[in-house]
Amino acid sequence: MPMDIQSTLDEITEMMDARAERGHVANYVPELAQVDPNQFAISVVTAAGAQFNAGACNVGFSAQSITKVFTLAIALGRSGDQIWQRVGREPSGNAFNSIVQLEQENGIPRNPFVNAGAIVTTDEVLAGRAPKQALAEIVGFVRAAAEDADIHINEAVAKSEQAHGHRNFALAHFLADHGNLRNAPELTLGTYFHQCAIELTTAQLALAGRFLMGADAGPRMVAQSRVRRMNALMLTCGHYDGSGDFAYRVGLPAKSGVGGGILAIVPGAASIAVWSPGLDRNGNSKLGTEALERLAHHMDWSIF
Amino acid sequence: MPMDIQSTLDEITEMMDARAERGHVANYVPELAQVDPNQFAISVVTAAGAQFNAGACNVGFSAQSITKVFTLAIALGRSGDQIWQRVGREPSGNAFNSIVQLEQENGIPRNPFVNAGAIVTTDEVLAGRAPKQALAEIVGFVRAAAEDADIHINEAVAKSEQAHGHRNFALAHFLADHGNLRNAPELTLGTYFHQCAIELTTAQLALAGRFLMGADAGPRMVAQSRVRRMNALMLTCGHYDGSGDFAYRVGLPAKSGVGGGILAIVPGAASIAVWSPGLDRNGNSKLGTEALERLAHHMDWSIF
Amino acid sequence: MPMDIQSTLDEITEMMDARAERGHVANYVPELAQVDPNQFAISVVTAAGAQFNAGACNVGFSAQSITKVFTLAIALGRSGDQIWQRVGREPSGNAFNSIVQLEQENGIPRNPFVNAGAIVTTDEVLAGRAPKQALAEIVGFVRAAAEDADIHINEAVAKSEQAHGHRNFALAHFLADHGNLRNAPELTLGTYFHQCAIELTTAQLALAGRFLMGADAGPRMVAQSRVRRMNALMLTCGHYDGSGDFAYRVGLPAKSGVGGGILAIVPGAASIAVWSPGLDRNGNSKLGTEALERLAHHMDWSIF
Amino acid sequence: MPMDIQSTLDEITEMMDARAERGHVANYVPELAQVDPNQFAISVVTAAGAQFNAGACNVGFSAQSITKVFTLAIALGRSGDQIWQRVGREPSGNAFNSIVQLEQENGIPRNPFVNAGAIVTTDEVLAGRAPKQALAEIVGFVRAAAEDADIHINEAVAKSEQAHGHRNFALAHFLADHGNLRNAPELTLGTYFHQCAIELTTAQLALAGRFLMGADAGPRMVAQSRVRRMNALMLTCGHYDGSGDFAYRVGLPAKSGVGGGILAIVPGAASIAVWSPGLDRNGNSKLGTEALERLAHHMDWSIF
Repeated sequence: MPMDIQSTLDEITEMMDARAERGHVANYVPELAQVDPNQFAISVVTAAGAQFNAGACNVGFSAQSITKVFTLAIALGRSGDQIWQRVGREPSGNAFNSIVQLEQENGIPRNPFVNAGAIVTTDEVLAGRAPKQALAEIVGFVRAAAEDADIHINEAVAKSEQAHGHRNFALAHFLADHGNLRNAPELTLGTYFHQCAIELTTAQLALAGRFLMGADAGPRMVAQSRVRRMNALMLTCGHYDGSGDFAYRVGLPAKSGVGGGILAIVPGAASIAVWSPGLDRNGNSKLGTEALERLAHHMDWSIF
Repeated sequence: MPMDIQSTLDEITEMMDARAERGHVANYVPELAQVDPNQFAISVVTAAGAQFNAGACNVGFSAQSITKVFTLAIALGRSGDQIWQRVGREPSGNAFNSIVQLEQENGIPRNPFVNAGAIVTTDEVLAGRAPKQALAEIVGFVRAAAEDADIHINEAVAKSEQAHGHRNFALAHFLADHGNLRNAPELTLGTYFHQCAIELTTAQLALAGRFLMGADAGPRMVAQSRVRRMNALMLTCGHYDGSGDFAYRVGLPAKSGVGGGILAIVPGAASIAVWSPGLDRNGNSKLGTEALERLAHHMDWSIF
Repeated sequence: MPMDIQSTLDEITEMMDARAERGHVANYVPELAQVDPNQFAISVVTAAGAQFNAGACNVGFSAQSITKVFTLAIALGRSGDQIWQRVGREPSGNAFNSIVQLEQENGIPRNPFVNAGAIVTTDEVLAGRAPKQALAEIVGFVRAAAEDADIHINEAVAKSEQAHGHRNFALAHFLADHGNLRNAPELTLGTYFHQCAIELTTAQLALAGRFLMGADAGPRMVAQSRVRRMNALMLTCGHYDGSGDFAYRVGLPAKSGVGGGILAIVPGAASIAVWSPGLDRNGNSKLGTEALERLAHHMDWSIF
Repeated sequence: MPMDIQSTLDEITEMMDARAERGHVANYVPELAQVDPNQFAISVVTAAGAQFNAGACNVGFSAQSITKVFTLAIALGRSGDQIWQRVGREPSGNAFNSIVQLEQENGIPRNPFVNAGAIVTTDEVLAGRAPKQALAEIVGFVRAAAEDADIHINEAVAKSEQAHGHRNFALAHFLADHGNLRNAPELTLGTYFHQCAIELTTAQLALAGRFLMGADAGPRMVAQSRVRRMNALMLTCGHYDGSGDFAYRVGLPAKSGVGGGILAIVPGAASIAVWSPGLDRNGNSKLGTEALERLAHHMDWSIF
């Protein structure tokens, strides 16, 4: 089986490296737009602790929305189920940065994985502290989960996000207008933009995701009952308005980021990180999705 | 284990029978409004073929939207992936009978489990035949899946649905206006209303759902790869705008109906049918959901 | 002045006849799609009773939505202000046949000049009678207003509207679902489609519009206070989602139809009918609007 | 006639002063919430230059959205019809501060009288200057129009608007995200909040509105053709989602503000200012609207 995983990853990587049609790199900030689309990496850590890598698995990329998973874990740890009074648990049926549904539902974001929802969980983590302190907690969580003290925030990306973040400023002020923001918009957003800018390799991300396997694999960051619920949210909401399609094709709880990364979980069995910068029309990694579809099928890892 | 399942079902039934707060029975047609809310039933069939029942497991109820699963299976069998050109695979973010999203997305329903989507799959199954023939195929499918020739359509419910079905007529004409209906609206809707009116007991429904376990449990109605995809759809879209919440709480692929029934699948392990007529605000069985939450937790059946 | 009106109409007609860019003829029913776009007509009746015509002023065209004005007048006559419990008085901010706003506002159409609103006023006029009787009243009203017994319904157009009227069937059933339809959808729609198919020349239409001048010009069909209010509605809602633009450019109360006709009123001064089949993107006559803009400017007829 | 106007205003004022049901005072900023609802004032200036006042006509109130008319006049003067590439001319069909339509129409506000639209016209007037300079131009315009150098901005109101302006910050950032804001959001909004806080009496406002009569009444601030178009916009869009109702009941171009003021224009005949702080559900002065309805009816001033 270990041998099989490695050879499967190698085969998939070879196949993906040969793809001409790779989607479009996110271009809303210069730092992301400059990333070379011709990159691919995949890493797997099993419940037994074995690690397998293929492709550019040591190249750091911007985690972006994938960090929403870690921020939610911290927010749940701090506030428990009370967080669900500020954010829902339903798929959005809209783009990740839509403001329409927010108005129709009176300032309660649909789920913690759309931007507005993650601004709320970040606001919950910030909790009146200086952004620096909250960021230390978030980065500390990721480092502890991955057991890797080198994980850091890319300051240039964070600054660029801030400079081009009008849509997120609109969302934050809108939340504030509905009384669903406890810190000043610029403080919550400062924290939000910086945590989005955490940089990871697939090797690091697969390690950081171990706690979501829920099988005593790696450091136990949250309780088992919470792990299951986070996986449920990742399955129904983890790929924006492409979540249904991802569940249909891949069949695994997963969270994508516009940096081109995806973290996917095989409950009780494996944590998978994949990265390819080109995105499909829903903002999810095009080759990353295809790689996961092939891997899940080959390993019989679908949860369904 | 078998002993354990039976005693768990008995405990849950006892607990549910004692509940005062049972939700509201669907009241849009007189036949459903007359159902006594003080009823509860639950049935489980395991992959090994053992069957367990508790409560009013021999009382027939109106399957309603649960039949959308069977109609989808038939439509996929007839047309394969071509059906996805007429209907999407994404959660709706709206009520089950909303017409808004249909207009915004040019007549392509979000998924086969909202009303508009099921009208499309029914239209695909009808395929130019007389409604009687298509209905024979649908009822035949359910009977074969349950290995029970007594399963039938409740004509009074079907007629009442038709008489009060203005919303569904609106959806069908809207689909027709967008060129996404191949048969006359009244023929497709005649078929649709009748298949909604199939009557089942939980004992029958649990048997009818065996094929979705995907483990050679009961008659093989569809291929294994398709079973997984249907389960993925049930998980992301099976409970209307409460699908995320159901996944979070129960963690099983499932489809609900406004008759108060729910069919839930534990892949590779069990087919579960539960029934209690009172509904929550999303139109899903209130006690049925709670019963499934307890059962899944006790049996460690969550897929996450 | 009379001489001036005639020469102005002649000049405008000559200019319009020379236009190459004429918009697109409505094509949702074959009968309208076949109309030759290279036609233009304009007629004016003054408060003093003088009539001026230019272009194809004796060619009949399908009045379509223009009849919504007459139906509203009859509904107001039958029910007075009670009609406003079933339909609003606000511009729609949406396409003429949108169903979205209808869902968001619980089955109360925004105004009597969008399709759903006119289905409601038609339903009010039908009032339990046979469609034939209601149609006799509507045609009778138009004939009386124009003092011309030759005005009639084009049966072929009415039948074609009915055969291609899925969108309107959707609207009617949607209204029925919200309890805002008193007659069976097929009866109200049968009446609706037939009144849309009334055929008029610009000469006839300008005469039929006299009562909206409110100056004892022609037969008095409704009270003066009601005339003003109908003109207010025509100004704010008479051109669908192009009403603001029409008010800005032309500055007159007016109602357009997809047959390419427009009826415009200069309160106390003139009734104007213009016709050119090509439509702009909002479904209003392209050359008709331009002709009215020129005429209103030349005659200093803007109400602002 | 002059005598008649004065006695009519006196009668109306007496009637309004006796009203118990006065609507609710705007409460989103403390400065507006503190205003005593038991106040009423009305002022009329005729084309001949005669002025008539009744009630608390010398009490200053916050002009709020009424200033959108002056800002539009300046923006049109600076940029002409090019402003229509950044903002539409259609009624909104939504609340004055809705963000939904802004998303659906890609950052182009429906018209210059909803908040988002006025932020755009303010942005056009700001044009790279310091807010102080733009504000000097706006206040200067109002002073010139009223021929009254005492008109000023209430700094406390401006500061309070800024402190509670999350919704407008959301709108401005949203416009910026769509490339429809040329100055930094905080600069445009600083200008916007201050111009909203211009304080006027009804006597001053009626004088400031003279130029919209278009009859060489008072200082000529804009060309006659532009006056007509501004009046058309006021009629179709001047009362938010109550514009249709206002046109129906009053029949005059007018612009309301949440401070409880309304400026109404009788083209060629009169400029009317009315003030009563209590608002109806659409955010328009309840008694102000009724007073205008009575005055327009009594004077036969409807434009229809």
